[in-house]
Amino acid sequence: MNESQQVTRGELRYEGKAKRVYAVGGATPDTGQYIVEYKDDATAFNGVKKAQISGKGAINNAITVAIYPQLEAAGIPTHFIRQLSEREQLVKAVSIVPVEVIVRNVAAGSFSKRLGIEEGTPLPRPVVEYCYKSDALGDPLINTDTALSLGWATEPQLVRIRELALKVRDFLTPFFAQRGVRLIDFKLEFGTLASGEVVLADEISPDTCRFWDAETNEKLDKDRFRRDLGGVEDAYSEMLRRITKN
Amino acid sequence: MNESQQVTRGELRYEGKAKRVYAVGGATPDTGQYIVEYKDDATAFNGVKKAQISGKGAINNAITVAIYPQLEAAGIPTHFIRQLSEREQLVKAVSIVPVEVIVRNVAAGSFSKRLGIEEGTPLPRPVVEYCYKSDALGDPLINTDTALSLGWATEPQLVRIRELALKVRDFLTPFFAQRGVRLIDFKLEFGTLASGEVVLADEISPDTCRFWDAETNEKLDKDRFRRDLGGVEDAYSEMLRRITKN
Repeated sequence: MNESQQVTRGELRYEGKAKRVYAVGGATPDTGQYIVEYKDDATAFNGVKKAQISGKGAINNAITVAIYPQLEAAGIPTHFIRQLSEREQLVKAVSIVPVEVIVRNVAAGSFSKRLGIEEGTPLPRPVVEYCYKSDALGDPLINTDTALSLGWATEPQLVRIRELALKVRDFLTPFFAQRGVRLIDFKLEFGTLASGEVVLADEISPDTCRFWDAETNEKLDKDRFRRDLGGVEDAYSEMLRRITKN
Repeated sequence: MNESQQVTRGELRYEGKAKRVYAVGGATPDTGQYIVEYKDDATAFNGVKKAQISGKGAINNAITVAIYPQLEAAGIPTHFIRQLSEREQLVKAVSIVPVEVIVRNVAAGSFSKRLGIEEGTPLPRPVVEYCYKSDALGDPLINTDTALSLGWATEPQLVRIRELALKVRDFLTPFFAQRGVRLIDFKLEFGTLASGEVVLADEISPDTCRFWDAETNEKLDKDRFRRDLGGVEDAYSEMLRRITKN
């Protein structure tokens, strides 16, 4: 399949809080590819708070589409193939590893609350945390022992996931700094291809990262929604503008 | 100082929920030793539930005194020197590493609740969890990255702590099995001597371990208190009896 061919949605395979994943439709049903559609739905506190953020799906798609090829160029394998439309991208079919990875440069959010450390305190070395991907349980904090013991990932997968997560951090932290943004923390998800290779999946956007303006520390991320700070759409648009300007 | 000399309490150095730690009194104030006194106080849910369990201090002291020399013999360095009285023991002065270690053989307690796994489910491989020792924060779950980044322990200390924790498990699991007890999980604390050596500190008792009768799965530990199951004193006495019988 090349870029000139039209790709159409097949069966809905998965619907999450912010995205839908479809098989590719047509005569050859198993192409090893999926279509990801970005929704405007916003949720927080494990779905307790819900709203629509106008244009969010398109912005997060555009931001992810801008960043993923640069991650690939930096040696990080990803599921991304190409953008299909304003809200859609074509990706390699992966089996998602049910271990979410949070990388922290600066204390914020649940980390600050849990450990009594003021938001904005820089961490002398990055902290990688792991959560079990389960809406029903509220994505509880785990560690690699737990993931191994309960069969959520293998030891080589976890080693590779950590290595890639830190590589993503090493790329993104200066990438955003050059755009006047402090990368406070971010969440990643990984998947495995049919070959077994671990690749970065999911999105990188103001939904999954904490971005603070480097000058003012103004929040340019989903915390504006979580904490009712207003200006949610403007913050997302501003992040897209900074990421896509040269 | 040899065993024939009387050791008397000096200044109170620390009072925790279940124990008091004193300097050694007398003319030579810094002996590099502490006196630990075991209290009857029982707390649960981070101090929200409080009571006295009659005889608990003496039983937990006796159980710890019975087990620690066997751990030493198994190659695990500890702070223990000798028993002083029914409720007191003499230990090497340590600086406690503020990282509590939980080793799990079987899902139970907070682990079961957090991850939605039925209590009593055996874990295919042991899980080592780490908590930040802080009453004010309720001993929150952390990982080794967090301990390193926030300066609570060094990398060599954390490597050694994990190694010793698994060694304690490998000793205690069959030790209790031979006494008709399933070792479900347990909490350890470690300290550093003035030399920097990491040693096992704190107690090993029904306050810090989950013990289930191997035949009936009856709880023989602090869960009887936490969950108002009754028979708390009897369970602690029964554990002492099983541990000290030949």
